Amino acid sequence: MSSTANSSPLTSPNRHKIVVCTDLGPALPLLTERHDIDVFLVQFAWMLQNVVGASGLVVCFQDIVDREVVDAAGPNLRVVSTISVGYEHITLEVMADHGIQVGYTPDILTDAVADSAVMLALMASRRAGQSYTFVKDNQWPTFHWTPFAFCGSQISTTSFSPTRTVGFLGFGRIAHAVLQRLSAFGITHCIYTPRPGAPDQAARDENLRSHLNLVSVAQVDLQTLARKSDVLFLLAPGGEATRHLIDEAFLRLMRPTSVLVNNGRGSVVDSTALAKALKEGWIWGAGLDVVDEEPQVGPEHPLVKEPKCVVLPHIGSAALETREEMARLTARNVLAGVLGERLPVGLDYSRLI
Amino acid sequence: MSSTANSSPLTSPNRHKIVVCTDLGPALPLLTERHDIDVFLVQFAWMLQNVVGASGLVVCFQDIVDREVVDAAGPNLRVVSTISVGYEHITLEVMADHGIQVGYTPDILTDAVADSAVMLALMASRRAGQSYTFVKDNQWPTFHWTPFAFCGSQISTTSFSPTRTVGFLGFGRIAHAVLQRLSAFGITHCIYTPRPGAPDQAARDENLRSHLNLVSVAQVDLQTLARKSDVLFLLAPGGEATRHLIDEAFLRLMRPTSVLVNNGRGSVVDSTALAKALKEGWIWGAGLDVVDEEPQVGPEHPLVKEPKCVVLPHIGSAALETREEMARLTARNVLAGVLGERLPVGLDYSRLI
Repeated sequence: MSSTANSSPLTSPNRHKIVVCTDLGPALPLLTERHDIDVFLVQFAWMLQNVVGASGLVVCFQDIVDREVVDAAGPNLRVVSTISVGYEHITLEVMADHGIQVGYTPDILTDAVADSAVMLALMASRRAGQSYTFVKDNQWPTFHWTPFAFCGSQISTTSFSPTRTVGFLGFGRIAHAVLQRLSAFGITHCIYTPRPGAPDQAARDENLRSHLNLVSVAQVDLQTLARKSDVLFLLAPGGEATRHLIDEAFLRLMRPTSVLVNNGRGSVVDSTALAKALKEGWIWGAGLDVVDEEPQVGPEHPLVKEPKCVVLPHIGSAALETREEMARLTARNVLAGVLGERLPVGLDYSRLI
Repeated sequence: MSSTANSSPLTSPNRHKIVVCTDLGPALPLLTERHDIDVFLVQFAWMLQNVVGASGLVVCFQDIVDREVVDAAGPNLRVVSTISVGYEHITLEVMADHGIQVGYTPDILTDAVADSAVMLALMASRRAGQSYTFVKDNQWPTFHWTPFAFCGSQISTTSFSPTRTVGFLGFGRIAHAVLQRLSAFGITHCIYTPRPGAPDQAARDENLRSHLNLVSVAQVDLQTLARKSDVLFLLAPGGEATRHLIDEAFLRLMRPTSVLVNNGRGSVVDSTALAKALKEGWIWGAGLDVVDEEPQVGPEHPLVKEPKCVVLPHIGSAALETREEMARLTARNVLAGVLGERLPVGLDYSRLI
């Protein structure tokens, strides 16, 4: 059965209380249709008042799960299940102290994010933001067509322009899914800069090269990544190690026909430097699903004002089937946790703290 | 040498006069740097006053080349070279009467248009127009994220949603290039409706299926195309035979999660019916590079007003390298024509009139 935030926070013996702070959509019945579970749907702001006695807690990436929350829940709490691939919002040391399992939803969103990365690359190269606004602003009726109006750079190869290099900062699952998609656009070369200290992957790279029928796949340093990428995808994690890694010095090395796409974390890019790079033509365009200090990004933000910059509000994984699957996994994780079973996808946080 | 529209329209003996009514960009020196050619750059509105004595004429798809133009040019005219894949603006019967060759630029734009078709499919499915406007309208800072906000339909397959059918109305070179790109997104099935009377292509289809590692490639009737396509690309020619082929009856057969993309001719789609289909949720979204009666398409147009419709101003082939190559071919076509040589890419219009 399900209850609202106004119901009693207490639950009966032999039943498990799960507090759900986010929208599980069509996956909610996985919890509410069970007779051994009481589900409390609450907004996170009211969670501290409702979490007492809970065995399970369901949150999203915006909900901070720290010692205060765990103390408020009390000793019944066995599992925190987050509908996200990240877990920076959960204080793992506190989870370890109390033996609380953490469920999350990695991998599921790989294809949805890869689709949106390719979309942003095409939109930035082909000036989709500018031309979309052009129609909305009633400029099409008086437009005098000429062969070079609205021309963009071209992601795909052609018989008269037969090579392209795609670059990746961060070269994990999502990058591989993007590379696979772009291989069908005729991309010939792939270069990437992995996280510092990553093991050599020459054998894997040769497999990728051969499987996708590319000319080369190679690990390079940051300067080479900047100089040689026709399309550069930023898919690196956030944090201090990558903060403003894409700065003025990096952007000045890039090509005037190149396109930058960020589907990773906004903090990786220095927004002021990127706006300058676009204004002065150091690069061709940018497609950003994430921006430093989002969501405080309005129409006066220097990147939103740049005509050749497409800014979307962090919708990389916002595909219905993907989010439904994330919601199902989140429900199955919390359910397994409260029943004392192994989580379908649990975080092994012992190596992270 | 080059001249302006103010120069004398007469040219000296043993020299050829070429009148250029469009922007050939970096390809213009192919004509102006020759010593046996006089180039006249004129706006098309002034062309009738400047064309007398011309051996060659360079136009774009907006410039009507009819009997009046040919009569004004006089008997020297040997070639009309258009920077376009279409030739509806040239009266072929008049060309035949006077033995004037016609040069055009097919095929070159295949990859650029295929890129833009995939971009429009992704934008329509992933609600890029809505979310782009959302940021421009200063709504991101107050946005409360939930798992199903801004969710779109998903073009790519995933492990939990392993089949997708792409449909094509018209199945020529551009369609094949789109199909190749989408195969890397995990598309499994391809269906298409060719022009009436097209020969059976079972062997070619089996080659495509095998080469792109698809489950099936099949020719179907219009009703099946509507019912089964998850993404439907309209790449058919214009004219009376295809006018409003995509009407209310067709759209009502489509799926509520499906996406319609038109990169062919605007006249193929009944705009009123499509706006109704989007408003009432018969289909998920639409991406249009062409619209019936363009460019008379402003912000009050029912399709521009639909949040799930992305309308771009006919920029399908607007990629710099592609347009430069089109300009080079246009210059080489007109040059060959005035010199009495075989055109690099000439239209065999004898079969068309």
